[in-house]
Amino acid sequence: MSDHQAILFANEAFYQAFAERDMEAMDAIWADDDAVACIHPGWQPLEGREAVLESWRAILSNADSPPIVCRQARAHMRGEMAFVVCYEEILGQYLIATNVFVRDGRTWRIVHHQAGPTAGQPEDEGEAGERTVN
Amino acid sequence: MSDHQAILFANEAFYQAFAERDMEAMDAIWADDDAVACIHPGWQPLEGREAVLESWRAILSNADSPPIVCRQARAHMRGEMAFVVCYEEILGQYLIATNVFVRDGRTWRIVHHQAGPTAGQPEDEGEAGERTVN
Repeated sequence: MSDHQAILFANEAFYQAFAERDMEAMDAIWADDDAVACIHPGWQPLEGREAVLESWRAILSNADSPPIVCRQARAHMRGEMAFVVCYEEILGQYLIATNVFVRDGRTWRIVHHQAGPTAGQPEDEGEAGERTVN
Repeated sequence: MSDHQAILFANEAFYQAFAERDMEAMDAIWADDDAVACIHPGWQPLEGREAVLESWRAILSNADSPPIVCRQARAHMRGEMAFVVCYEEILGQYLIATNVFVRDGRTWRIVHHQAGPTAGQPEDEGEAGERTVN
């Protein structure tokens, strides 16, 4: 698996944990230290692992949480870090998200997430884009 | 200057270029390659240096652009990369932003920016926060 594939795989795993309300998987996807942050749509920023994971516990345990699907994920790679820009489809509406990843051995872990409103929408369901700087 | 100071300095330089509509400074702040992206509030994501800088030329040349001030910038550092979470104050309203930086020799350059609405606001104007992973 190339780094590019591994990053998009990690991004997809994040949304799978989100969609399946799998808190154990969500916990494992986030980097295991305190230099993490998360900005849910409209929220104030959450900083540090405890605050970020607590927010996910609240969201994933909410039975009224709507289904979410990741669309048009594009990875921008730079050695040991990468960020993914993607749409989040929720009941036919779209948010736009940034997910920042760092390499952790053979896997990639998320260190930051921001999602917010957008007037845009995915262009197609074709090949995921890629821009790499080594 | 510590890395932490240098990253907050680069973040401040980004907002100074924004506030002063200094396109030359804005151009210099962005990494000089194509693995950059930008999500202005409500916009579709822009990817690649040409599209990102074109958007800044349009914004900075607009005489009706309101003043912008960066508040409560907090840097999260990981070796050769860092991301800053900060509020953007515009006419007494707040947006929340993520700015991702990478090291470029002795300076840090921005590779990604996302700003969007928030219900939060800066807590105080005290010392800028820091979380570092080496």
